[in-house]
Amino acid sequence: MFDKITEVSLLYDFYGQLLTDRQKEAMRLYYEENYSLSEIAEEFRISRQAVHDALKNAGKALAEYEEKLGLMKRFSESRAAVSEIEAEIDNLQEEYREETILTARLSKIKKIIESLE
Amino acid sequence: MFDKITEVSLLYDFYGQLLTDRQKEAMRLYYEENYSLSEIAEEFRISRQAVHDALKNAGKALAEYEEKLGLMKRFSESRAAVSEIEAEIDNLQEEYREETILTARLSKIKKIIESLE
Repeated sequence: MFDKITEVSLLYDFYGQLLTDRQKEAMRLYYEENYSLSEIAEEFRISRQAVHDALKNAGKALAEYEEKLGLMKRFSESRAAVSEIEAEIDNLQEEYREETILTARLSKIKKIIESLE
Repeated sequence: MFDKITEVSLLYDFYGQLLTDRQKEAMRLYYEENYSLSEIAEEFRISRQAVHDALKNAGKALAEYEEKLGLMKRFSESRAAVSEIEAEIDNLQEEYREETILTARLSKIKKIIESLE
């Protein structure tokens, strides 16, 4: 469904706060700032291999949190359902576009949906 | 918003899998099976005070997960928005009850919403 980098980034959004400060910083530099392993190694004054291992362990920890809690999966499913509802309402607004009271009411529902995003 | 027991139970639903097996079992007996501290103490062959401390520590751990991740809060907010949408659709179906095509379309949306629950 997602490529590896996207998946790790998503997991990081959910569970990143459970990592150590060092792990968080390494992940942030690698996945958000697009630093290379060598650049992070230089920043942290550790070996490139140590950076590689730290990122690997952090990624594994995140995956374990998801395996135990499954919250990212729950959120993704909600998000998919919400998009489906949004599309249905758009269709209704298009089909009933002359019914201004109805379309206004549907817009109100869309506004609530948008507050979810 | 919630009483203490409900709040701990909700937190347990979200983050319980991150507790130790012993903590999970103590919480389950106390909050789901309504065992007393003394009954859990007997079951685990530990003191009543030790059960009290174990539950307190487990509750604290759950609260810390929520403080770091805030996922229960996010879910509660989504849930409130979803209920609001559901109520709006119910109203529309009532007001436009003679428009059978429209109400059927709205029922489809409600079905998607129900899949969220």
